[in-house]
Amino acid sequence: MTRAYNFSAGPATLPESVLQQAQAEMLEWHGAGASIVELSHRGPEFLQVAQEAEADLRRLMSIPDDYAVLFLQGGATGQQALIPLNIATPGQKADYVLTGHWGKTAIKQAKPYVDVNIAASSEAGGYRDIPARETWQLSDDAAYVHVTANETIHGVEFRDIPDVGDVPLVADFSSSIVSEPLDVSRFGVIYAGAQKNLGPVGVSVVIIRRDLLERAGQPRADIFTYASHVAKESMLNTPPTWNWYLAGLVFKWMLAQGGVDAFAELNRRKSGLLYDVIDNSGGFYRNEVDPAARSRMNVPFFLKDESLDKPFLAEAREAGLISLKGHRALGGMRASIYNAMPEAGVEALASFMRDFQQRKG
Amino acid sequence: MTRAYNFSAGPATLPESVLQQAQAEMLEWHGAGASIVELSHRGPEFLQVAQEAEADLRRLMSIPDDYAVLFLQGGATGQQALIPLNIATPGQKADYVLTGHWGKTAIKQAKPYVDVNIAASSEAGGYRDIPARETWQLSDDAAYVHVTANETIHGVEFRDIPDVGDVPLVADFSSSIVSEPLDVSRFGVIYAGAQKNLGPVGVSVVIIRRDLLERAGQPRADIFTYASHVAKESMLNTPPTWNWYLAGLVFKWMLAQGGVDAFAELNRRKSGLLYDVIDNSGGFYRNEVDPAARSRMNVPFFLKDESLDKPFLAEAREAGLISLKGHRALGGMRASIYNAMPEAGVEALASFMRDFQQRKG
Repeated sequence: MTRAYNFSAGPATLPESVLQQAQAEMLEWHGAGASIVELSHRGPEFLQVAQEAEADLRRLMSIPDDYAVLFLQGGATGQQALIPLNIATPGQKADYVLTGHWGKTAIKQAKPYVDVNIAASSEAGGYRDIPARETWQLSDDAAYVHVTANETIHGVEFRDIPDVGDVPLVADFSSSIVSEPLDVSRFGVIYAGAQKNLGPVGVSVVIIRRDLLERAGQPRADIFTYASHVAKESMLNTPPTWNWYLAGLVFKWMLAQGGVDAFAELNRRKSGLLYDVIDNSGGFYRNEVDPAARSRMNVPFFLKDESLDKPFLAEAREAGLISLKGHRALGGMRASIYNAMPEAGVEALASFMRDFQQRKG
Repeated sequence: MTRAYNFSAGPATLPESVLQQAQAEMLEWHGAGASIVELSHRGPEFLQVAQEAEADLRRLMSIPDDYAVLFLQGGATGQQALIPLNIATPGQKADYVLTGHWGKTAIKQAKPYVDVNIAASSEAGGYRDIPARETWQLSDDAAYVHVTANETIHGVEFRDIPDVGDVPLVADFSSSIVSEPLDVSRFGVIYAGAQKNLGPVGVSVVIIRRDLLERAGQPRADIFTYASHVAKESMLNTPPTWNWYLAGLVFKWMLAQGGVDAFAELNRRKSGLLYDVIDNSGGFYRNEVDPAARSRMNVPFFLKDESLDKPFLAEAREAGLISLKGHRALGGMRASIYNAMPEAGVEALASFMRDFQQRKG
């Protein structure tokens, strides 16, 4: 097989040109005498890579100066523990809006540290919508309000930024960061594992409003302290240099493609194409999410006849379309179509789905 | 410049054949239709990579079955916080033997969680030796005893395993793991950032005796819990797949070279060569570490005439020998010569040092 269209939810497909550049530079980076993965994080070569990556991400996302940007290890789940440790006092109330699997994970990590109030939840309905803002039961004195901007497994996405007043809004953007323009100033903390829209797994981006760094938080190790990471420009300990480098190449690729405006339009078209196939299949395919909350990044769908699941996956693979199996929590299928998934890949999948239905429906 | 001999302390040089394989596989891994960095960590391809890496490391280090092996994010510094969280009760006493910069870091991370007793320290003498075991003031009721097997900056290495009775011995082996045979059964926990002897930065190895996983530890998030990571085979959240993969390639390379026995002999010769040049330089070069505690991995040295530091570094670079500048905490020079540094590289450095002395001495 040559390179297939890979619909994996994360780790996910990367731009082919980025992989080609990483391949070309694997044994030596820009005349440095060594690979970027072998060079000191404190040397001029990696410092250049690191600084350019931050500057490019700031440009891509129009991040205001009063926000710090961190490149850290630990994944989004790690941040879900660090956030209460850093911006809530022990046992303080924190509001969580639960709209899927990853919101549940966030709550699990926070519970040892804060009094979690589930301000709203779509769990009873199987995580198929976003509870309307006016139904949320926010606390008076919460340290923060936490939302999951896009639920990767359930395919449910916030399509606007909820107003939570002066309480900092904290959002897990792991699967939708840089997929469209975003008003960063509406958030206290934005965090994201890189392995969906930003690059390779092994580095996470944390965008934090600087005043929150002054909160006392809870007793914790220095390595768990955002302010310490900010003071050392994400080099409090040795950072995951290759992962950071590869994310930086993705940022440059995004800027060259026209930035988030271009990807917003592309992602609208790509997801629209798949939802159209599903909605026009007369029930052969089905997506159960409220259309107003459907994810542009992850399109979960089910075949009416489950006995066709295996042939669907096998024939898709034959057609060069891989990683379409749904998460084990839901079953069915899932097409993850982040920025790096070309429109041609989605067109090939849409065409395969129509053809499969014609032959089996 | 083509590839130089890179004496960086970490991130450090990698075996050229490993980089070549990673380069060849960068766009597609073994016919999978995608790069290993793009494939799901739960798919058969990465599971195979992960399992082989663990099996190979177990074989390399003869790790007994009653030890779990984890591949985690967070670096060694992250583990320095997780260890007290997992194996000590809040405020319990823990003994630390301080023999350099990284021991100090370990103490800093642990202090919020345990009552740190510095059982022995070589700080007053500038970290130039290992305090004799009989001088250690161990606590009666310590949760564990922590040592730094090799101090990367100060070039000081334990040359035997101290007897601490029934108290678990916890050791930071970041810079000397797999450099020689080791009796793992003498330790409670061995941890190491990968970026020196194991592969790329961004993944850490934790080898933990299974009975320690049953300790209650302290209130903490699930993502900070070793037992949870063990239960999920290091996939509690998305692991750093490419970093794990590359470490796995290094393990296979090591096994093909003859394993830790072969590297022990090679490392003895390599470090011996440099210390000989230093000791036979009539004071032109100087290493101040007690010969009985000299590191086989990191050889720090000073030029008698500091004004020659810059010419030394510049001419070394011209000769294809890079990253020899000492850590800013010490100054001078440092040659890090982990497993992946070929003997020819050390011979080239030794020859350059003799020649430089002849011309400038």
